Amino acid sequence: MALQERAVRTRRAVLVAAAAVFAEVGYEAATISEILTRAGVTKGALYFHFSSKEELAQAVLASQLGAIPAVPTRELMLQQGLDEAFVLAHLLSVGDPLVQGSIRLTVDQGARSDGLDRQAPMRGWIARNAELLGRAKDRGELLPHVDVDAAARMFVGAFTGVQVLSKIMTGHADLPERVTDLQRHLMAGVAVPAVLLQLDTAPDRGARVYEEAVQAGWGSAQPQAAG
Amino acid sequence: MALQERAVRTRRAVLVAAAAVFAEVGYEAATISEILTRAGVTKGALYFHFSSKEELAQAVLASQLGAIPAVPTRELMLQQGLDEAFVLAHLLSVGDPLVQGSIRLTVDQGARSDGLDRQAPMRGWIARNAELLGRAKDRGELLPHVDVDAAARMFVGAFTGVQVLSKIMTGHADLPERVTDLQRHLMAGVAVPAVLLQLDTAPDRGARVYEEAVQAGWGSAQPQAAG
Repeated sequence: MALQERAVRTRRAVLVAAAAVFAEVGYEAATISEILTRAGVTKGALYFHFSSKEELAQAVLASQLGAIPAVPTRELMLQQGLDEAFVLAHLLSVGDPLVQGSIRLTVDQGARSDGLDRQAPMRGWIARNAELLGRAKDRGELLPHVDVDAAARMFVGAFTGVQVLSKIMTGHADLPERVTDLQRHLMAGVAVPAVLLQLDTAPDRGARVYEEAVQAGWGSAQPQAAG
Repeated sequence: MALQERAVRTRRAVLVAAAAVFAEVGYEAATISEILTRAGVTKGALYFHFSSKEELAQAVLASQLGAIPAVPTRELMLQQGLDEAFVLAHLLSVGDPLVQGSIRLTVDQGARSDGLDRQAPMRGWIARNAELLGRAKDRGELLPHVDVDAAARMFVGAFTGVQVLSKIMTGHADLPERVTDLQRHLMAGVAVPAVLLQLDTAPDRGARVYEEAVQAGWGSAQPQAAG
């Protein structure tokens, strides 16, 4: 293995291990020594890539959007947005460490002094939703009254809370069903009827789209999470 | 002041002080000594009412639904539910310590070993929403397809996330507007048109209903939160 490739793999292993520890115990209680044990790397290797627990947490937060597989392009932009949300829900419900860790870091309020930028991933999700809703509007998929920016914020906020509630009540076991309920309600309020009829919002949509993305080669270009 | 009344006031002062500290620093970082300083009571007085930080946190969680003023009964059950949600958003946005503290304790995941029951307040909100939606259904306010239990869960989840996102992005400053956006979308998916037209979902609804509840005597029977 080339030196550079090994460095990329080591960095990835540390990042995934850190995300798993953040997912389990939160930012405050996480320790570098626990992350080292999980990652199976030396202290020197970890500090070569990350100078502190804060830098690790920022990197986990920054990986949030990239941790979602690229969904193959859909004809309907509303289906594209739905598929990205369903894949995110799928990864949460199967316990993907990067997604679970980065979302816990975002939602836990933390200490005022911890310096973590929780707005960055949220801005990313809002921008992605606004982009897709804007394209949906241009293509005539949306009802005329829909305010794209307000709807983007609402989609991100509502999804966030549905996953928080599902986590509290069922440890994310019922998340696919809850996201289906939410998306059917939200779509009914924004999509023109001809589009609404075509949308696939079934609870197993996330698992199917994830499989499709993996078959299409997602993940083969990047070192995968261990275990 | 009668002895019993003084005890009730002391317990309340400790509860509100604890909620304020939990809201600011979270459960892990909160200390009894900080709570004592805020409450302005002796250690003996605090331990007379609460045996530990965990018991304090459980009491703050248990106070969550009761911290919302009783909204005067509305003709439309959907307006009743809206008003309760808008008042909750109002209290969050003006920084009510009991509401902020209890909601932070619910949403922050915490340590596995902290023993806090985060499901209890969520079950309470879901039951309250299901009760109001069930009455709305009986009175013909709902579209025929609406599943009351699923809708109740969705309302609670979506509200939770909209407040989390508003907290992250604006420190709750834009919460009334975000709750208006959410409720307009959700109501469009559940209410029959004749009811939908009558619902008041304006961003200042929460402040108005809160004022109305206070005028109607809410809070006069119970010791108020300190300053």
